[in-house]
Amino acid sequence: MTDKRIRVGVYGASGYAGQDAVEILRHHPCAELVFATANTQAGQPIPHTSMTYIKSEDAPLDQVEAVFLALPHGASAQMAVTARAAGVRVIDLSADFRLDTPARYKQWYDHDHPYPELLPAPYGLPEINRANIVGQSLVAAPGCYPTTTLLGLMPLLKNGWLEPGNPIIVDAKSGVSGAGRDPKPHLQFVEVFGNLSPYSPGRTHRHVGEIEQEIAKLDPNAGMLIFTPHLLPVDRGLMASITVELKADFSSDGAQALYEQTYANEPLVNVLPAGQQASLKHVVHTNGAAISLTSVTARYLHITSVTDNLRKGASGQAVQCFNLMFGLPETMGLL
Amino acid sequence: MTDKRIRVGVYGASGYAGQDAVEILRHHPCAELVFATANTQAGQPIPHTSMTYIKSEDAPLDQVEAVFLALPHGASAQMAVTARAAGVRVIDLSADFRLDTPARYKQWYDHDHPYPELLPAPYGLPEINRANIVGQSLVAAPGCYPTTTLLGLMPLLKNGWLEPGNPIIVDAKSGVSGAGRDPKPHLQFVEVFGNLSPYSPGRTHRHVGEIEQEIAKLDPNAGMLIFTPHLLPVDRGLMASITVELKADFSSDGAQALYEQTYANEPLVNVLPAGQQASLKHVVHTNGAAISLTSVTARYLHITSVTDNLRKGASGQAVQCFNLMFGLPETMGLL
Amino acid sequence: MTDKRIRVGVYGASGYAGQDAVEILRHHPCAELVFATANTQAGQPIPHTSMTYIKSEDAPLDQVEAVFLALPHGASAQMAVTARAAGVRVIDLSADFRLDTPARYKQWYDHDHPYPELLPAPYGLPEINRANIVGQSLVAAPGCYPTTTLLGLMPLLKNGWLEPGNPIIVDAKSGVSGAGRDPKPHLQFVEVFGNLSPYSPGRTHRHVGEIEQEIAKLDPNAGMLIFTPHLLPVDRGLMASITVELKADFSSDGAQALYEQTYANEPLVNVLPAGQQASLKHVVHTNGAAISLTSVTARYLHITSVTDNLRKGASGQAVQCFNLMFGLPETMGLL
Amino acid sequence: MTDKRIRVGVYGASGYAGQDAVEILRHHPCAELVFATANTQAGQPIPHTSMTYIKSEDAPLDQVEAVFLALPHGASAQMAVTARAAGVRVIDLSADFRLDTPARYKQWYDHDHPYPELLPAPYGLPEINRANIVGQSLVAAPGCYPTTTLLGLMPLLKNGWLEPGNPIIVDAKSGVSGAGRDPKPHLQFVEVFGNLSPYSPGRTHRHVGEIEQEIAKLDPNAGMLIFTPHLLPVDRGLMASITVELKADFSSDGAQALYEQTYANEPLVNVLPAGQQASLKHVVHTNGAAISLTSVTARYLHITSVTDNLRKGASGQAVQCFNLMFGLPETMGLL
Repeated sequence: MTDKRIRVGVYGASGYAGQDAVEILRHHPCAELVFATANTQAGQPIPHTSMTYIKSEDAPLDQVEAVFLALPHGASAQMAVTARAAGVRVIDLSADFRLDTPARYKQWYDHDHPYPELLPAPYGLPEINRANIVGQSLVAAPGCYPTTTLLGLMPLLKNGWLEPGNPIIVDAKSGVSGAGRDPKPHLQFVEVFGNLSPYSPGRTHRHVGEIEQEIAKLDPNAGMLIFTPHLLPVDRGLMASITVELKADFSSDGAQALYEQTYANEPLVNVLPAGQQASLKHVVHTNGAAISLTSVTARYLHITSVTDNLRKGASGQAVQCFNLMFGLPETMGLL
Repeated sequence: MTDKRIRVGVYGASGYAGQDAVEILRHHPCAELVFATANTQAGQPIPHTSMTYIKSEDAPLDQVEAVFLALPHGASAQMAVTARAAGVRVIDLSADFRLDTPARYKQWYDHDHPYPELLPAPYGLPEINRANIVGQSLVAAPGCYPTTTLLGLMPLLKNGWLEPGNPIIVDAKSGVSGAGRDPKPHLQFVEVFGNLSPYSPGRTHRHVGEIEQEIAKLDPNAGMLIFTPHLLPVDRGLMASITVELKADFSSDGAQALYEQTYANEPLVNVLPAGQQASLKHVVHTNGAAISLTSVTARYLHITSVTDNLRKGASGQAVQCFNLMFGLPETMGLL
Repeated sequence: MTDKRIRVGVYGASGYAGQDAVEILRHHPCAELVFATANTQAGQPIPHTSMTYIKSEDAPLDQVEAVFLALPHGASAQMAVTARAAGVRVIDLSADFRLDTPARYKQWYDHDHPYPELLPAPYGLPEINRANIVGQSLVAAPGCYPTTTLLGLMPLLKNGWLEPGNPIIVDAKSGVSGAGRDPKPHLQFVEVFGNLSPYSPGRTHRHVGEIEQEIAKLDPNAGMLIFTPHLLPVDRGLMASITVELKADFSSDGAQALYEQTYANEPLVNVLPAGQQASLKHVVHTNGAAISLTSVTARYLHITSVTDNLRKGASGQAVQCFNLMFGLPETMGLL
Repeated sequence: MTDKRIRVGVYGASGYAGQDAVEILRHHPCAELVFATANTQAGQPIPHTSMTYIKSEDAPLDQVEAVFLALPHGASAQMAVTARAAGVRVIDLSADFRLDTPARYKQWYDHDHPYPELLPAPYGLPEINRANIVGQSLVAAPGCYPTTTLLGLMPLLKNGWLEPGNPIIVDAKSGVSGAGRDPKPHLQFVEVFGNLSPYSPGRTHRHVGEIEQEIAKLDPNAGMLIFTPHLLPVDRGLMASITVELKADFSSDGAQALYEQTYANEPLVNVLPAGQQASLKHVVHTNGAAISLTSVTARYLHITSVTDNLRKGASGQAVQCFNLMFGLPETMGLL
């Protein structure tokens, strides 16, 4: 059966998202991991495999059909171009192709997009954009904050339940692996242990642009996003706590049914029974999301949406996109 | 100098708040700890002292001038009555005297108040109610959620900055010691470690009634509270993350100056410089609060308010009230 | 292919070890989980499956070929008897069948063994007792402390490297899940967080009897065990830190080669390259062990042996035994 | 009373030990903190004070009577020389003056001591060397591993209880603040969280030389040290788990009385009652040590010794030395 497997490579495989990509792919029944790059760890063994990391420049692009790019912002775009030129399909986990237009990219990243001709790329969140991912050659898999927030909002947006123009308020908390592996003073154990810290509050976090872009596609009348991320003293897991006001036509009591219907056929989204609250334990080390709903008053709804930031918020979702791109069952290797 | 010290007792001294009360009082220059009760640990040594815990019934009420009640809801009211009958002043850390009226008490606690004649008691949050605490005999010290939330809102409420009727949205996170010492399945280490869990969301947590009571005193036009507490995987520390809409007359840009002025003479409230974000590390193991402000848009303001839930959110504040009740310098033993 | 699967049940499936057993079995290519019992959670959904827990008394023993018993000490023996009477094979994760004789059992558990006729059962540590597990009907899978300690010592014991009579000194550290799910005061989050606590030190922990029993089989001249377990503030993972004196005939420099040879064909035991130290991260969430060696002096050797206490130290090992009992590839479902 | 205070400065005050030194000194009744240096944070406010950090070169040495040096190895020696030249007394928290001879220093630090004429300096562990600290001008305060290990062994060493020549086996575990504040990959939160890692095992850790030096002074016949430190996933706290063999003349049963007598008048060393085990919670955020004893067999004794690595293992002990150097009550500011 090996000859039928799709041969893949992972760039940036020693980062936290890259490691999880390797871990998922080595159990995937229809993928074969051919190489995994990690420039600073070239020659070192890859945990739980018999392979070693190689340098990016030594990666045999001609021997794979697809690559996962778990590279820093900027480096990813460049490698995507190289891979596409070699006829290799790309699942990009960076932010490089998530914004649809060069203008929006410049607004949030403060410089011109290096390859504007590749924009827009399909936004790789299958539950809201499945049709545009199937069969594609380059997909921009969204990260943890957008994925978790958008899954928590989608049923309301798609069905026009939100009071037009009113802000969507999101208090988000991320495990520290979301900040990557590079040593930084504020990510040292002693600084994080026993602590909880907001950062990039209000409308300053770069993911605001990406989330609002996708919100607008689903509901052009939706209000702005007020988004406050926090660094949470756990290694993995992400929670988006969302408060919204509904149109007078709807009542928050109906949200439970709306969400259950919307996600009825989504195996990776678990709408919890009424009365339960979604916690990180529901999703950590899985490739799914969990969502719980609270009717605060008739007009106000509170939503808790959780994912594992390295799985449904990164590598799990990338493999989900990979499955769609290659016509495999969408959840293969993910349940 | 010993003869000038005010002799005090602590009831419920082996609980987390009680332990911190003992710890603060044993360093307090004008208090002398005469006894500390802990029914299940009677006879055991009290950490860092040469005393042992005694049973509540053995406490020599006639030898003290004041008692701190760190007892469960219900037990506290009864002991307060006993102490008052003995002429002993009471700083109550429970919820028993925080609601002003028997009706409101019944609404939130589902049974009649056992001693309605003692209501209302002064609400022991000095920064908003100092004048009513000075010299008093019974004070109801508020807990961690109300203290942290109210300190974060007070300058806006007092000065009428909030858009009338619009909801005040609070995402709150508490260290696990806030849930007390009794063993419960969901508080076991393995359940909390690596997790984050919302509970009592929306308008169901009992502290909503108390917070709204105090909000209304400061600003009768303020909207309802939407309050979502979370169990945070740390031992101590509490964060209230607050989002509000301002009246069109005001701009969120002015909030920094408003808060700095309001708290200019409050040694236990630290308004961080613009651009910094309050984190638990700012306050854990201290008796103060820290507050940071973010101007989201002109009309929307985000506030982060933090305390140590066992200190400014419990025992530190109780000692602050004690100091006021006895005419001592307010921050004695607390800096 | 489903009809070829071996039908199995798990008793005590909501405990930590039971949960991991379910998790491993639901991915196992040749096992089919037919039921999972949890008396206090009967009717609740089993995470990541479409099944619900059932009561032990409702378990259809006649529909399975094997059961995993993740039950408390005592309850396990009784269920084992019932299962065996029904012709069902048993992998017992409790301590009930680990000691070879009724006398030894009484010595360590302070009461008579309820079913002495079932002793001795094969000791389910494949790397030291594989031949006696293959094809068996009742196997006693050892727990985390014995497994991790014995794997760390086995090459020395089997080859007679230890100085006869000299003590084997083991400092052991266990994640909190090893203490089970029942709420206890000392297992509350606040008590464990930021703490490290020894317990049952010296020769008092019940696993000392079991470990010494197996040591003696491998090397009758080995000295006594000095064993100090600690409660470690992590959810899972176990480390045994071992110090031994070698016979003058051997040098600790040779230990690296000895271990590499001994475990060369053991896919679940990873002897780290010389100079590296085994840490919990090497094994957590895997079914393997990792071992590192330090030559302190020619005569003194230090060994660090680590496992995931719920996997190789419990359920992973139980499935490894299951594979051997049924003639399946030993690591099926475990890599 | 301010005019009677001893004016002091702290170098390296933004490091973890330096921060705790400032915290202790700002509450010390007879010390006045005049300056605190932190080159990379010069101009930043010092938490809980009204002061700001200054650069080392701007420190007014002529305005203080004593300085605490919480500087890196090497930098400390140089500053000590400068301070002594200015007539300022020095409490050094680095390793620069802990070894008695230039030869021993070179053996463990691989280069010549820069100021051999200053060796030997008094070893600043009051419980074993009090007489040599009183009134001194330069004291080398030992760090966390030596302090905790030596306090755990001292009664045995001083009274000749150890079997001559037999190894002293120490399994040590340190909170991460012991590794300092500089960002390093292996100290990142995600790497440490949920992990436990040995490092510098056997006889390779630099503190082995220092500990053996002090052991030999107390008992020249004592055997070598086998010392395995571990990085523990907590912010502060240190545990030394010690196993020793006693001479046949003594029995481990007598150790409890021996320790209780030895430390009877030591307010900062708490020998726990027989049967209790010392844990980090006994000492974290205090300036004391706690010790518990277990009689394994008549000849084998297990000792658990714990400190807060930043307090009794660093800054608390430095202030204890300061008190002795200046003739103040030894525990002033420390209880």
